[in-house]
Amino acid sequence: MAEPLRRRLPLLSLLLLAAGGLRAAERSGGSSSAMEELATEKEAEESHRQDSVSLLTFILLLTLTILTIWLFKHRRVRFLHETGLAMIYGLIVGVILRYGTPSTSGHDKPFSCSQEDRPFTTLLVNVSGKFFEYTLKGEISPGKIHNVEQNDMLRKVTFDPEVFFNILLPPIIFHAGYSLKKRHFFRNLGSILAYAFLGTAVSCFIIGNLMYGVVKLMKLVGQLSDKFYYTDCLLFGAIISATDPVTVLAIFNELHADVDLYALLFGESVLNDAVAIVLSSSIVAYQPTGENTHAFDAAAFFKSVGVFLGIFSGSFMMGAVTGVVTALVTKFTKLHCFPLLETALFFLMSWSTFLLAEACGFTGVVAVLFCGITQAHYTYNNLSVESRSRTKQLFEVLHFLAENFIFSYMGLALFTFQKHIFSPVFIIGAFVAIFLGRAAHIYPLSFLLNLGRRHKISWSFQHMMMFSGLRGAMAFALAIRDTATYSHQMMFSTTLLIVFFTVWIVGGGTTPMLSWLNIRVGVDPDQDPPPTNDSFQVLQGDGQDSARRNRTKQESAWLFRLWYSFDHNYLKPILTHSGPPLTTTLPSWCGLIARCLTSPQVYDNQEQLQEEDSDFILNDGDLTVTYGDTTITANGSSGPHTATTNLDSRRTKSSSEEALERDLGAADHEVTSRGTRLVFPLEYNA
Amino acid sequence: MAEPLRRRLPLLSLLLLAAGGLRAAERSGGSSSAMEELATEKEAEESHRQDSVSLLTFILLLTLTILTIWLFKHRRVRFLHETGLAMIYGLIVGVILRYGTPSTSGHDKPFSCSQEDRPFTTLLVNVSGKFFEYTLKGEISPGKIHNVEQNDMLRKVTFDPEVFFNILLPPIIFHAGYSLKKRHFFRNLGSILAYAFLGTAVSCFIIGNLMYGVVKLMKLVGQLSDKFYYTDCLLFGAIISATDPVTVLAIFNELHADVDLYALLFGESVLNDAVAIVLSSSIVAYQPTGENTHAFDAAAFFKSVGVFLGIFSGSFMMGAVTGVVTALVTKFTKLHCFPLLETALFFLMSWSTFLLAEACGFTGVVAVLFCGITQAHYTYNNLSVESRSRTKQLFEVLHFLAENFIFSYMGLALFTFQKHIFSPVFIIGAFVAIFLGRAAHIYPLSFLLNLGRRHKISWSFQHMMMFSGLRGAMAFALAIRDTATYSHQMMFSTTLLIVFFTVWIVGGGTTPMLSWLNIRVGVDPDQDPPPTNDSFQVLQGDGQDSARRNRTKQESAWLFRLWYSFDHNYLKPILTHSGPPLTTTLPSWCGLIARCLTSPQVYDNQEQLQEEDSDFILNDGDLTVTYGDTTITANGSSGPHTATTNLDSRRTKSSSEEALERDLGAADHEVTSRGTRLVFPLEYNA
Repeated sequence: MAEPLRRRLPLLSLLLLAAGGLRAAERSGGSSSAMEELATEKEAEESHRQDSVSLLTFILLLTLTILTIWLFKHRRVRFLHETGLAMIYGLIVGVILRYGTPSTSGHDKPFSCSQEDRPFTTLLVNVSGKFFEYTLKGEISPGKIHNVEQNDMLRKVTFDPEVFFNILLPPIIFHAGYSLKKRHFFRNLGSILAYAFLGTAVSCFIIGNLMYGVVKLMKLVGQLSDKFYYTDCLLFGAIISATDPVTVLAIFNELHADVDLYALLFGESVLNDAVAIVLSSSIVAYQPTGENTHAFDAAAFFKSVGVFLGIFSGSFMMGAVTGVVTALVTKFTKLHCFPLLETALFFLMSWSTFLLAEACGFTGVVAVLFCGITQAHYTYNNLSVESRSRTKQLFEVLHFLAENFIFSYMGLALFTFQKHIFSPVFIIGAFVAIFLGRAAHIYPLSFLLNLGRRHKISWSFQHMMMFSGLRGAMAFALAIRDTATYSHQMMFSTTLLIVFFTVWIVGGGTTPMLSWLNIRVGVDPDQDPPPTNDSFQVLQGDGQDSARRNRTKQESAWLFRLWYSFDHNYLKPILTHSGPPLTTTLPSWCGLIARCLTSPQVYDNQEQLQEEDSDFILNDGDLTVTYGDTTITANGSSGPHTATTNLDSRRTKSSSEEALERDLGAADHEVTSRGTRLVFPLEYNA
Repeated sequence: MAEPLRRRLPLLSLLLLAAGGLRAAERSGGSSSAMEELATEKEAEESHRQDSVSLLTFILLLTLTILTIWLFKHRRVRFLHETGLAMIYGLIVGVILRYGTPSTSGHDKPFSCSQEDRPFTTLLVNVSGKFFEYTLKGEISPGKIHNVEQNDMLRKVTFDPEVFFNILLPPIIFHAGYSLKKRHFFRNLGSILAYAFLGTAVSCFIIGNLMYGVVKLMKLVGQLSDKFYYTDCLLFGAIISATDPVTVLAIFNELHADVDLYALLFGESVLNDAVAIVLSSSIVAYQPTGENTHAFDAAAFFKSVGVFLGIFSGSFMMGAVTGVVTALVTKFTKLHCFPLLETALFFLMSWSTFLLAEACGFTGVVAVLFCGITQAHYTYNNLSVESRSRTKQLFEVLHFLAENFIFSYMGLALFTFQKHIFSPVFIIGAFVAIFLGRAAHIYPLSFLLNLGRRHKISWSFQHMMMFSGLRGAMAFALAIRDTATYSHQMMFSTTLLIVFFTVWIVGGGTTPMLSWLNIRVGVDPDQDPPPTNDSFQVLQGDGQDSARRNRTKQESAWLFRLWYSFDHNYLKPILTHSGPPLTTTLPSWCGLIARCLTSPQVYDNQEQLQEEDSDFILNDGDLTVTYGDTTITANGSSGPHTATTNLDSRRTKSSSEEALERDLGAADHEVTSRGTRLVFPLEYNA
């Protein structure tokens, strides 16, 4: 008996489930002979083939992108990033699909039958004596009934929005967390947190209010044909506040621009993604009771704030906990003798974070981010050399594929999405609003931060941060998540245009902008910055120790120093093989526990600087370094040991203050060994 | 407006789509207030949480397996392989789910409404004025209507059978092809092909006929309660003919058992998977016309044979073509400067093979296998050192996860699958039949092959091959693909038991069996075998050249030599940077084309033995070797160069005959450098 399975969601096809999914029908026809069954099978097989073709389209797109981007990198073309290119190819294929394929409507004719109550999720239908099971797909607005399944090919290339949240974003976000440039990230932690939390909130409210003004204006001039509430405007603010300067950062990386500026931008964009997701859920949760459902309601507002704090801290905890568990498992087993097992465990644990958070009602993507940071900070130290490069490479490839897929899908969506609403007034308003929103958060916040910072964020840095407010994958994923209403459709179309504009125009203008703002590029972080330069001081691992130590002390906020010494004295020794033995840091009555938790290596390495290992994760292109590490074990010389030698003079001390400086200084050599360094053209040096 | 999406397939949850999939409903509730919608949302959210939990269950299972297997490897326990362990944990969780969770039936009450015609694939249902879209899930036999959705948790952990074919098998099969031990594989190609094609066909027909006898017997004694046709028996033969000696091979690898025996077993199991898939489709395609639909029909038989040949050669072509395209792309671009791009391209191209084959109506899994072999043979040579280890590691991790997932799912399925039919007579008959089927293919074929082989397949090898007829992932995937009828359900339950028995009992008995049969273990392929040993001669790279050369000539079949010289003289130079320049091998009138296709490196390396690089892929544990290679580039010594030195005396000759020997000899040092070698206990050496 055949099982004519019908693939419901095009998202299946993303994972090649759909491909071949219906062959069961074909293969199991042996014992039945009913003609209608054969017809269904034929249809099923046809649909399955279309799924394969639509997936092939995306693979072709990505392949083309890879080849072209290679050509660009090869020729040192820097005005177009791979993500921008992926969008262009997506656009082209979108145009072809929209206007080039016939509208093959209708072998799935809708059938109506009335029911009294709310819809069942499962439906049994009796067809000439046989029972068929149907499942609920979703509601359809009455006007669209005849548009359903209009063009098979367009429908096939349209993915369920949740694909982005549940498949494509997690590897991107995890990779971001796992490859956070730890040293500069922690040095600028305060500023990064301020930009990410305060900045995103400010930006969201300013954009939301400005857009509400725009909407009022549109209503006045009669450009608005349906409802558009204040909460919708705020949601738009949250959606569009997630910056994604992937293009800018790629160029920074290539040109070796200032590492602190890099850390500020990267850290902000990573954390504000998390803030924007949680903010948008909180805004959706803002549902005032009573009749006047779109006015301000204090109770609902505080509930929203509570939701924000709850989801954020819950997701943070989930991520941190699974990271810590992985660290403990890798520390107390000798799994590092079997890199394959270790890598598999690492992958599974990181994935389980996502599921655990979703199962508990928190946000998986946010949990994954903090899991990545925890894994990089602790677990990475316990992994074998092989697993370090394996995990890095695995997530790097996943991240690359997912990111380019999202961007090419964006290009495609401009033409294949069926419900676009482009309103010129709204679009122009949105561009002005995001500009003002970014200005209103960068400049005042930088001013406030500069009051407390010893190393001021210079004007040129502020302008560069202002300029780098690109929007990308996260804004798109948030916008496409719900396109059921008029207002959401308009927001989606506008978001798409903003992403296009910022990635192409702003991204392409990065190099000229850098040179125009006189921001140092080609920086070798091992060298002291020229004294004339007003940017951050780069900490050094050699020479002038005491002067720098004082500076380090003043530079770091007391909160950070408190956390650092806790981390260094207790967490690192518990979770990794590094740090001082717990027997020396814990009070004496904890002696037994301390001895159990401290790994034997710590006593051997007490005088050595194991922390250096953890710094290898800092660099995007650190494969060279990791391979270098392998070389070392064979040769018995060089690599991290060179760095250790630089720090020889300080080896005998082991207070956490000392360790802090060493940590901050130890990674100085990292940036010098990038995998794919391109030569910086001379004209920008002038 | 909410979109109450209902996840239809539990397979979604495999890919964490389901997790979070329904939050759209939750997030978009801002503008609506209907109570029934809220109820649907609550339900949806609940279902989403259950999906996350069920996926977490599987991750927990795999994590447990990894940790336990580490412990086993650590303590050198060898009687239980990780796949066997995964099954045990799966069984335990299956028991808990089956008997430990409450039967939460019924918030999805079935609804019936009559329809005249064949079932539509899409249904629109009018519920109090709103339209909801439903999609066809499948037919339900009338007796089971009230069993549908009986236990939510059991339903959640049940995956769509096509998941196995479209997600889990491809990485397993690709990895098998990509890591085929090329040297020993090609030396024994004739025998491997004979075992895989003839052997599988013989086994299939013998098992099919024996089982038909068993079924007749069951009918006689009244043990059969529904139809069981001859074609069903043949299908069972095809399903159960796919051997998967994963456990045996793991032990071989660990103990360094004879490499030729390894190659015979591994090659056979890889290829007979492909043969079994295509065979089973062909048997399904065998549909005699007319009334007497289960008698023999010559026309239908030849159609089936045609289907077999068509699907097999088509899939083979697809795989080979995408492999060749990848090789050309990686050869003629300088993509190897950017390992990330290269790896991504490699991954995408390999995946597109699957889709291409499915889109053209061939078998994706088979295409992927041949793509893997082609990639290993050609593309691998063009990749950068980094990409080589990246691609190997990526597919190794995917393979490991997929394989253990399938085996733990098998354990689970024994208790969670709802339609088991265990018939003692059928099961005993099946065990006898697979024993006889394997005997009837190993011994006669070995006898025939030995007539032509110079290095006979010894009796102990034949016994070992007979013993190693384990069944695994492929048999399971083929059996679960269609469990709609009584006969197929009985076949599925029996297959499950056969897999359990062979993996646990046969797999656990491998080491005693090896010692009982006196098969050499701890073989270092660099050393000549003791003269008393009647197993295969191992080719050497140094000393006694001419004697061995003669042997090599006689040993290789003319067809293989013909292919080899074609491959060496034309394909390798066209597709890779190695081999003799085309300008010397092609006739002079092709001069221009030859110059275009030959890469500049070839002229530099003309006298060098670049083919050695390709041999690095041969070894399962070759990470060490690849890292070694990195070391070499830093030191400028050793590694492949050592091998080259061994062959110095022959460098000046460059005929394909010479190259053949070099190729066969060059990889001799490979097995000595495994990543995770375990010490071989002394008692087995005696």
